[in-house]
Parts: sequence; structure tokens; C-alpha cells
Amino acid sequence: MKIQEGSYVLLFHTSRKKWLTKVAAGKKMHTHLGIIDIGSTIDMEYGSVIRTTEDKVIFLIEPTIHDFVMKSERKTQIVYPKDLGFIAARTGLKNGSRVLEIGTGSGAAATYFASIVKPDGHIYSFDVNPDFMEIAKRNLEKAGMLQYVTLHQHDPHQGVDVREADVALVDLGDPWTVLDQVHEALKGSGAFVAICPTMNQIEKTATELKKKGFVDIESVELLIRNMEAREGMTRPSMRMIGHTTYLVFARKVQRKVEAPVEEENEEDEEG
Amino acid sequence: MKIQEGSYVLLFHTSRKKWLTKVAAGKKMHTHLGIIDIGSTIDMEYGSVIRTTEDKVIFLIEPTIHDFVMKSERKTQIVYPKDLGFIAARTGLKNGSRVLEIGTGSGAAATYFASIVKPDGHIYSFDVNPDFMEIAKRNLEKAGMLQYVTLHQHDPHQGVDVREADVALVDLGDPWTVLDQVHEALKGSGAFVAICPTMNQIEKTATELKKKGFVDIESVELLIRNMEAREGMTRPSMRMIGHTTYLVFARKVQRKVEAPVEEENEEDEEG
Amino acid sequence: MKIQEGSYVLLFHTSRKKWLTKVAAGKKMHTHLGIIDIGSTIDMEYGSVIRTTEDKVIFLIEPTIHDFVMKSERKTQIVYPKDLGFIAARTGLKNGSRVLEIGTGSGAAATYFASIVKPDGHIYSFDVNPDFMEIAKRNLEKAGMLQYVTLHQHDPHQGVDVREADVALVDLGDPWTVLDQVHEALKGSGAFVAICPTMNQIEKTATELKKKGFVDIESVELLIRNMEAREGMTRPSMRMIGHTTYLVFARKVQRKVEAPVEEENEEDEEG
Amino acid sequence: MKIQEGSYVLLFHTSRKKWLTKVAAGKKMHTHLGIIDIGSTIDMEYGSVIRTTEDKVIFLIEPTIHDFVMKSERKTQIVYPKDLGFIAARTGLKNGSRVLEIGTGSGAAATYFASIVKPDGHIYSFDVNPDFMEIAKRNLEKAGMLQYVTLHQHDPHQGVDVREADVALVDLGDPWTVLDQVHEALKGSGAFVAICPTMNQIEKTATELKKKGFVDIESVELLIRNMEAREGMTRPSMRMIGHTTYLVFARKVQRKVEAPVEEENEEDEEG
Repeated sequence: MKIQEGSYVLLFHTSRKKWLTKVAAGKKMHTHLGIIDIGSTIDMEYGSVIRTTEDKVIFLIEPTIHDFVMKSERKTQIVYPKDLGFIAARTGLKNGSRVLEIGTGSGAAATYFASIVKPDGHIYSFDVNPDFMEIAKRNLEKAGMLQYVTLHQHDPHQGVDVREADVALVDLGDPWTVLDQVHEALKGSGAFVAICPTMNQIEKTATELKKKGFVDIESVELLIRNMEAREGMTRPSMRMIGHTTYLVFARKVQRKVEAPVEEENEEDEEG
Repeated sequence: MKIQEGSYVLLFHTSRKKWLTKVAAGKKMHTHLGIIDIGSTIDMEYGSVIRTTEDKVIFLIEPTIHDFVMKSERKTQIVYPKDLGFIAARTGLKNGSRVLEIGTGSGAAATYFASIVKPDGHIYSFDVNPDFMEIAKRNLEKAGMLQYVTLHQHDPHQGVDVREADVALVDLGDPWTVLDQVHEALKGSGAFVAICPTMNQIEKTATELKKKGFVDIESVELLIRNMEAREGMTRPSMRMIGHTTYLVFARKVQRKVEAPVEEENEEDEEG
Repeated sequence: MKIQEGSYVLLFHTSRKKWLTKVAAGKKMHTHLGIIDIGSTIDMEYGSVIRTTEDKVIFLIEPTIHDFVMKSERKTQIVYPKDLGFIAARTGLKNGSRVLEIGTGSGAAATYFASIVKPDGHIYSFDVNPDFMEIAKRNLEKAGMLQYVTLHQHDPHQGVDVREADVALVDLGDPWTVLDQVHEALKGSGAFVAICPTMNQIEKTATELKKKGFVDIESVELLIRNMEAREGMTRPSMRMIGHTTYLVFARKVQRKVEAPVEEENEEDEEG
Repeated sequence: MKIQEGSYVLLFHTSRKKWLTKVAAGKKMHTHLGIIDIGSTIDMEYGSVIRTTEDKVIFLIEPTIHDFVMKSERKTQIVYPKDLGFIAARTGLKNGSRVLEIGTGSGAAATYFASIVKPDGHIYSFDVNPDFMEIAKRNLEKAGMLQYVTLHQHDPHQGVDVREADVALVDLGDPWTVLDQVHEALKGSGAFVAICPTMNQIEKTATELKKKGFVDIESVELLIRNMEAREGMTRPSMRMIGHTTYLVFARKVQRKVEAPVEEENEEDEEG
């Protein structure tokens, strides 16, 4: 595919030296590696190479949703790809899904989910903070996902005007305060997930979920380790992020039925 | 949504006692919790509750792609949701993507990816083993994804008849042997990922990728820890899976350009 | 060194098939690998090999403190070697140290610590449970460490008759309830450590330590991963223990001085 | 205990702002927190508090072996406390043990082990690098452990003049090259451990150990996670060290006996 005026391109030198930018005729970027002539990339194929004024190699990469998320403008902690990917896989998010999001933040999750559910699915996202809404809007627009996301600047505690959602994602400091609203918005057996950085949050969220008509309650943490894969000296990286967040999953069921107690050491009996 | 004749339902007692089954009038299932009258669920809403002949609670859950993958018939190690999710998020897999898969296995990855890229995207999957093909076909059919996946029983070393793929997933014991074929099949700056259970595989794959026109080479491992979230006694689970696989990611660029050396301790300079 | 009547020997077939036993003339052991003639090992060197009646290889290993701990009789969760080792290294436990232990349990920690501090150091261990005391006594005797440990069947909340201790180890469900007693028993800047399986325990313990004259408060978790090191196919084990316990460390200082707030992202300034 | 002229003291403000220094009358230290009057600490109790000229709190901590190791002068990567502690616990190192060390480095391991085995045990440490020897000597002296360690500037490949060692620690880039020498130096069923930062090293070391008369070969990695224990917001730290080293353990047995194959999924049969 050819790069065009108005396309986004990831200017990639190494994994630590890369820039996401919009292409325009005549545009130049000044970096420590020399000046990059961005305008010159018009009509080049993605995957090609240019050089800076200091003869440093720059690969022209077509940005993916992952690149847009990692380079998004943000005022809050974003949800990281390792967590976004598992949320999608664990909830069964798929093409056509309808998603309720409480806590838009900078829009990283909405961007990623929209890229999967579009064009027929949709993201309904609520946040009370108008500044976050503006940032999210810009990030969604940049990634080409704005049309698949409806942003509501509205306090979700007062009810959310969404029904039959397949998935509900809650990214609030106190996810347990919106469980009634979420239960009402989800379809039968729809999937719930909460972003909970602390153990106090998972404890309260899991405890309240049991009382509010949810089962299959599962709290997890994902850790990602980078590996240095080099001939004859392969090992894990010295650098590692220690923690991003816990995730709490559940599924909506009819209320007032007591769920059986989960025993950690129970034997599996599956089919 | 109502359960119908021919629907799949996940009969959920606890996270360790659950069964995925197809609904048919008159069908009954014998379990240690008593007999489950599956036929009786017809016309019930997902999320409802029935009871076994021993009065045990069974929640009627609409199976997601996650449930189909976890309950898939298999002769090989499947790729787990934590890894599938990160592969999708890291490669930027999205609605409409064209995917080359080398090594169909039991079809778990193809099932998950198809659920994201459908209806306009497509999965082209190659495997030399006819038994795996049959299993994969049954698993894809069960999850309703067969029409979005083309299965080729063909040795990919002899070339693959796919071009302009957005993403290539390689799940072979020796991923480094098909890099030329993959390079040809990918679009410019398209994403590569290999499933590598051992460190010897990541070492060889990463080394060969550098020579074959790929950059942004990154090897990672994901670990998932379950948390026991209980009031006043929250802690990680004693049970944990120690390892599933490493993942090696890269992006296709034009050949014969030497990529800059990545330094582990290099400072970030990003924009 | 030669095996003698009354010696202990670890009969080692593989890491999963091994037995710790006391040597006696004429003694035989029946196993799935055949009968082992234990009496025949008298006068053999440790490190030698015998064979079962089914010609299976048995290596004669001199048991270490590690083997005694792992094979100890127990009614409670023992503290594992990864945690025991770090407790010793982090508190600076050494030859000659005086140790206060609150919560004897099955005596695993006392056994290990005694092996380091003997002959001039000593362990003073308190527990209210007479059954645990009996088990601990047998385990200490077996490992040859009983003479370096004084067992007090006494409620430590009523005060402990120990002063100028170098290290205090607390293995109770509510370690924060004995901080006054521990503060009194420790020497100036002596080391405190608590065994806390849950996050709620570390939160309460760390919070109370701040109020009770302790600084350098640090909570950690150790994870151990086994590696399968095999030519051409090296990888982490699939099996892994997900969690044993958290550890909370601190040092006693004079009371009523407010410690500076620790900032997670503070820059180091060390010399 | 009172601080004296010539004592070492750890001047502790927070865990990131602390200094290990020798006390001398009239000595002052300039820091970003103001000037610390070190001479004034003479005759004070450890655990007391002084203040800088800017009225910042400084706790007077008696340094432990842990502090000496963490503050040691170094030209090489040191072995960290989490690894030192597990090496001691897993090999059964104890008071009175005789230890062979191949690869003295900066002397951190020798310092820690000496503190356990003294006064009757001993460390015999070999290194070919005279610069390392000098650094190790200074570090051992500072920690008061020099008399329990014999430093040999000698290539261990030419043989080591140690017999009946309880434990052998090898910290070389190619531990598999000294296995014959180590086998000869260890007592029957004595413990071997190698420091191996890369997977390639554990693979080669474990493979050679099998051929050279060692059993109970186990490769492990320890990970340490710090926890932020704060009321109502407890969670793991964002900062984490991704990797220090793998450790390979084994025990010496008589040669030319083929050890049974270890199966990862073998059932335990223990007594």
C-alpha cells in the first residue's frame, strides 16, 4: 500500500526511537538522528526505507491500532495492550459486539474495541470528565474509529441508556458502585470486566458482583516479560513493568439465585 | 436472547464444573451433580437458571469465542487466550484483516481471529497434517467461523498462495524455515508473529528474522496469575500455569537494509 | 563421609521419587521401584549407588537442612526454602544471631535458622498450640537442631522474655498485634519480618509498623520458576506454584519520630 | 549496642536515600538533605535518630551483611540477595560448611556465605583476575569476613586444591568447563550450584552435569516483586527487575551410573 497525503506513518529507527506522524507535502521532522523528510514518503510503499540527513535508516511502517494506542495522547493511565488483548479474548468480544464502557479515559480501550466490532458493532462510552472526552475524541479520530464510538458526558451512576450489551467494561476507581446499572445494560449472560489497579478494588468488586447477579467471577493479573533473543546469550530482559492492573471478569445472570461456592482446590469436571 | 433448538449453551455450575453442549429437544446430560435436562432450556433466556435432578444450580450461559476455544477438540497444544489476545492486540489485527496462518493445529487461533476479522477479512490457514485439518474444521464449524477460514492441506515450505496479508501467524516447530514465504505473502510493513514454546526457537527465529527483511523484532512471554479475591483474605492463587509459549513479533520491510542495533539500555526518544 | 547406623540418608531415584529415612541394620523399604535394602548402606560413602530388587538405581544422598525442611512432618503450611533463604539474606541473619520467633508452627523456620546461627546464636520460639510444639520438637530433633532452639508454649501477646534480639520472625495470622512485644525484644535497628499470605495482612502490618517505631518497611513476594534445561528445547516448566506468601520486612528504631514518606518514583541518592 | 569510632553505620532517610559509612570523630557528610554530622553518632545507640543541618531525619542503622553486600564496591554484576538466600537454603549451607567458590567477582557471595559458615567453616575462592581479587578483599574486610575466606588468584581449570567441600558455587561464563575439578573437590553427595544469566548457559551446564556424575539437577529462576502496601490501595510496585540470573543446582554422586530420566509430569512418590 502506498503512503498518501494525510496518511499516518510510523517512522521506525529502533523500538525505542520511533515517531507516529501524519504525512504532508513539505513536512520535515527534526530528531537527534537528523532531519526526516516526511513529505518525501508520499507515494512510497509502506515497508520502504528512507534516510535522515545524518544517513540514519528510517523504516516507514503503517501504524496499527497497537501503535495508535501506544502513541495516544493521555491524561490518565491507559489500559495496556496485554490487558486490552486479554479483555477482548476473555469476554469473547468480536465483530458486531455492542460494548458499554464506563470510564472513557483517554479512549485507548474504545479505540481498540472499535477496531474489532466495526462496522456493525458499537461502543457506548460514558465519562463525567469533559477534558477526558476531548482527548478521547482526538485519539479516536486519529485512529479512524470515532464513528463507531458514541461518547456520553454523563454520570453513569444516574443510569446508562444502553440495553442488550454483549460486553461491559468498567474503568472507574469504584467499579462496585455501578453494578446495578451494568446489570441492567447487559444482555443475559453478557460479559463484565473491571480495570482494578489495587487489590482492595478487586476484593470489593468481586464481593459485590456475587450479590448483584453475576457468576463466573474471575480476577487475574497479566505479566509481560520481554526476552533478549540473541545467538548464544538468550535471556529475559532486565527491564520489566512490575504491574499495570488486575482485571475482574464476570457474567450476568438472573438475580437472587445463590451461586455455588468456588473451591480453589476443587477437581475439574468438564466436558 | 432466547435459547433455541441447535443453539450452543454453556451449562455453568462453577468455573471448574461447566459443560458446553448443543441444545436439542429431549436431550439430557448425566453429571456428578445429577441429570441436566437440556431440552428444557429451549425458549429460555441466556442468563437463566435451571436445576439438576439433585437440585444443583446450573446457569445457562451463551458461549463466547473464548468458551469455544477453551472447549475445542484438540490433538495438539492450543494457543491460550492470554496469548491469542496479545497476538491480536500487538499485531493490530482488526475487522477486515487478511491473515496467513502456517500451522492450523486444532484451529483455536483461526477461530478467534475469524471472529474479529469477519465478515470481510479472511484467514488462510496451512497445515500438512490431514487429521489436524479435520479437527480444525469441526472446531471452526461449531463456533460458526468456518466460512471465514480457508484451510489448505499443503506444505507451506513450497510457497503459499497468499499476498498482501496484514498479519502472518506461524505455529510450527521451526518457524525460521518459512520466513521467505511469509515475507512474500505479507503486505509492506505487515505483522509477523511466531508461537515458540522454547528459548531455542525464539533465538533462531529472531536471528533469522534480522537477515530476512524484518524489523521491530520483539520476543515476549505472558504470564497469567489468578487472584483469590475474598473479603479480608485476598491473595494470588496457589495454582498457576508456569509457561505456555513465547511469542516473537516482527514487521516486514524491504530487504537488504541493515537495521540499527537495538540496545537494551538505550534511552527512549519518542514522539 | 560414611553412612552409619542411625544416620539419615536421602534415597534418591529422581527428584519426584526420593525418601528420607534413618539407617538401621536390617531395615528394608518397600516402594513401587522394588525393595530398598537400607541396612546395606551402612559403611558406604554418601554419593554411592545401590539398586532396588527391581534393579532401579538409588543414589545415597546426605540430607541437608533443605531436605529435612522439605520432608518435615507438618500440620500447617511450612515456610518454603525460597522464602526462608530470602528472610535470612534480607535480615542479615548470620552465625551467632539471636532470633525471636513468634509462631513456631512445624518448626521449619527454626530448623533452618538454627543451622545458621549455631552454636553460639539461639532461636527463642513461641507458640500457644501444644500440638505444633510437639511436631516442631520432633522435626528439630531429626535435623539435629533442637539444642539451639528454646520452645515456649506461651501466648506472645502477654509479652516475650527475650531482649536484644537481632531478628524477629512473626508467623501469625495477625502479626500487627504483637508489634509492641517485638519492638521491646529487638535490639536497636534489629530486623523484623512477618509471613503474610494475604494482601490484607501486608496492608495492616505495614500500616501498624509505621506507627510503632519501625522504618525501612518493605513488602515483597518471591516467585520461583523451574526451568526445563534440555538440549535444543529449553523452556520454563509448565508446573509452577502460584503463591506461597508475602514477606514484610522492617527495622526497629526509636519511637515517636515520624519517618519520611517513601515515594515509589523517588530518585535514588545513595553512597 | 552503641556506635563507636570505627563502627559502620547505615545512615537511613528512606529506602532510596541511605548511606553506609565508617564512623570517625569530626567526620561530616554532605548530601542533598543537608550535612550529616557523623562524628556526633559516637556513643549513640543503633536505632537512634539524628537530624541533618536541614532538619531532615536520619536513622542510625547497624548495617547487616545484606547492607554490606548491597553497598559493596563492584566491577561485575553481583549476585543479589534473593539469589544468595536461595543458594544457601537450597544447598543446605550452614554453620561449619566448607565452600569452594569458582569466580570470586567482587566477593558478594563469599561475604554472605562466610557470615553463615564462620568461625569453623571456610570459603576457598578462586579467580584469575587480580583486579577482582583486590575489590573482593576490600569488600570482605569492610564486612569483617576476610579471615574466613581464602582468596586464590589461580585458574581453576588447572585444578583446585580443595577436597571434601560441602558446597561448590561456580560463577563463570562457562561453568561446564570446571565440572571435573568441582567433582573432585566436593564430598560425596556435596552440593553444586552455578550462576547462569542466560538460557544457553543453563542448557549446557545441565547437559554436562548429567555426564559428569551429578544428580538432582534443577534449574530455577527467582523473581522478586515489591508490593506497595498502603491502606486501601495495596498493589504490586510498577518497578520490577526483570531478570538477574538462573541458578543450576546438582549433587555429586559416583560416576558412570546412568541417572533415571526425569519426567516433567511424573507423579510424586515421596516419603
